[in-house]
Amino acid sequence: MNTLNTSASTAWQGGRRRIHLQDVGPRDGLQMEQAFVPTADKIALVDLLSTAGLAKIEVTSFVSPQAIPALRDAEIVLREIRRAPGIVYTCLVPNLRGAERAIEARADELNLVMSCSETHNLANLRMTREQSFVALTAVMALAQQAQVPINVSLSCAFGCPMEGDVPPDVVLDWAARFVALGARGITLCDTTGMAFPTQVAALTRGFRERFADTELTLHFHNTRGMGLANVLASIDAGADRFDASLGGLGGCPYAPGASGNVCTEEIVHALELMDFDTGCDLAVLLEAARRLPALIGHDTPSQIAKAGRRLDLHAPPPDFETWRARAAARG
Amino acid sequence: MNTLNTSASTAWQGGRRRIHLQDVGPRDGLQMEQAFVPTADKIALVDLLSTAGLAKIEVTSFVSPQAIPALRDAEIVLREIRRAPGIVYTCLVPNLRGAERAIEARADELNLVMSCSETHNLANLRMTREQSFVALTAVMALAQQAQVPINVSLSCAFGCPMEGDVPPDVVLDWAARFVALGARGITLCDTTGMAFPTQVAALTRGFRERFADTELTLHFHNTRGMGLANVLASIDAGADRFDASLGGLGGCPYAPGASGNVCTEEIVHALELMDFDTGCDLAVLLEAARRLPALIGHDTPSQIAKAGRRLDLHAPPPDFETWRARAAARG
Repeated sequence: MNTLNTSASTAWQGGRRRIHLQDVGPRDGLQMEQAFVPTADKIALVDLLSTAGLAKIEVTSFVSPQAIPALRDAEIVLREIRRAPGIVYTCLVPNLRGAERAIEARADELNLVMSCSETHNLANLRMTREQSFVALTAVMALAQQAQVPINVSLSCAFGCPMEGDVPPDVVLDWAARFVALGARGITLCDTTGMAFPTQVAALTRGFRERFADTELTLHFHNTRGMGLANVLASIDAGADRFDASLGGLGGCPYAPGASGNVCTEEIVHALELMDFDTGCDLAVLLEAARRLPALIGHDTPSQIAKAGRRLDLHAPPPDFETWRARAAARG
Repeated sequence: MNTLNTSASTAWQGGRRRIHLQDVGPRDGLQMEQAFVPTADKIALVDLLSTAGLAKIEVTSFVSPQAIPALRDAEIVLREIRRAPGIVYTCLVPNLRGAERAIEARADELNLVMSCSETHNLANLRMTREQSFVALTAVMALAQQAQVPINVSLSCAFGCPMEGDVPPDVVLDWAARFVALGARGITLCDTTGMAFPTQVAALTRGFRERFADTELTLHFHNTRGMGLANVLASIDAGADRFDASLGGLGGCPYAPGASGNVCTEEIVHALELMDFDTGCDLAVLLEAARRLPALIGHDTPSQIAKAGRRLDLHAPPPDFETWRARAAARG
């Protein structure tokens, strides 16, 4: 007997709705890697991604080269990529010095970051949240002077690995302060993979009700296997813009061995099958994803890179025709 | 601007709905392993799973010991496990000889298997589908004589890795033939991980409309990262019973390196967070999952086993109090 809900939910039907995908692999992925990926290879990777139909690419991070040597070539990469029309080339910027460098190198957008959790902000940025906010206010003023749009990424929006749950109102109140300062977009980041679909649907809906005109991005990690489900729950609640990382790069320091960001080619593969319009060319993404192991020196979490698309068919086993003939002979 | 559907879908709200989970790891997982897991360890694993609140456990497979030496101890395992009340101890049975052995060893249920795809059935079972059906008809007659209930697993219900798409009517027509013969349950198997949520919702709904009184199980693999999303789409369309495998064991020969069955502890973790009632004790499942690497000699795909539950919190970094004091001193 079936007593469950059997309504034909639109959650599983894309209906050609447009979903904007933003690849953060060149920044969020490569910053975690031990190996320094040569500058020319980074540029080639971004250039290839520029042909894949993404809405935005996070190219690099203007952090201190001592703090993250993997991205010490931020200026050169941002200057030398071939920019395709319609794609926003964004860069992570931790502070005023980084903002100056990013603006000088002609970033299309600055992506600022602070945490919704006091403990995580102190652990990660060594400031209180209020101190971060004051510092980022100065960065925003500089960017506005230079007419460069701002996105603010709020870490731990779905929970803090040290504090636990973060109340939704805390998240939305921090968003409100940046929206009031003129941020074009807010990213709700599931920094350590604590988000789950029920929570995601509620927070997305809450954000949409409060900030109808702000560009909302959701940034999920697949740490506990809920990445795609979170994307779908968020779409169902009104979101249409997601970060993802080529190959699923970008681990979480609190979950060694677990998967990183949601994987761009897996999300595109799934959403296109569901009749969403991602605008992306999966073949190009797969080509780019298959370059990664050579660049970073190890395998990636991408399952599509291993298994192929669902209709990438296989030949029958070598003895198949013999078996078929024998079966036919049995009548 | 938000032009997407913002209705509060029940797809993300369990509302304490009961979901029945069936662990197939001892059969579907271990049969793929190179190492022979000692019989006593298999029994201990099943006994531990029996305390975890699962609805059903697929204990072993009564195949030829030459064909699958990993499960050559089927009789001993099934006879020596401690059976908990309320749990169905099922066994895979490929043919009449297997059925005789399983009935003799007191299986609670026989799980028969054939493929919805002619090519896959020939490649996997070396019979046409009609030949499989005739052979399974004899097995069902034997089981019915012994009053042992039958479940039929239909492979490639969501696609064949050699043929491609399998029409839903073909799947439902094969189900109908077994339902007409008196099968208690049908499992729609996503044998090689080709299912996607839109398709899953439609086939689940189609099955429910046609066979309201048949126990329906969905069996997904996470080969292309869509496992949990497929489970949720299926629940939303009326299913309440799923196979899963402890640790996510059970690869697919057509996708080496890709993930196996959906992972029991990941599905329980996600569904319980969403307020579904799985009846399962996640702590017990995690304890069992963490035994697996020692048993099989390698890591498992389980991300929960690596990352822990979402509220398994971490201590702040060692220098945290220093940073906090310095931040406080800055005012």
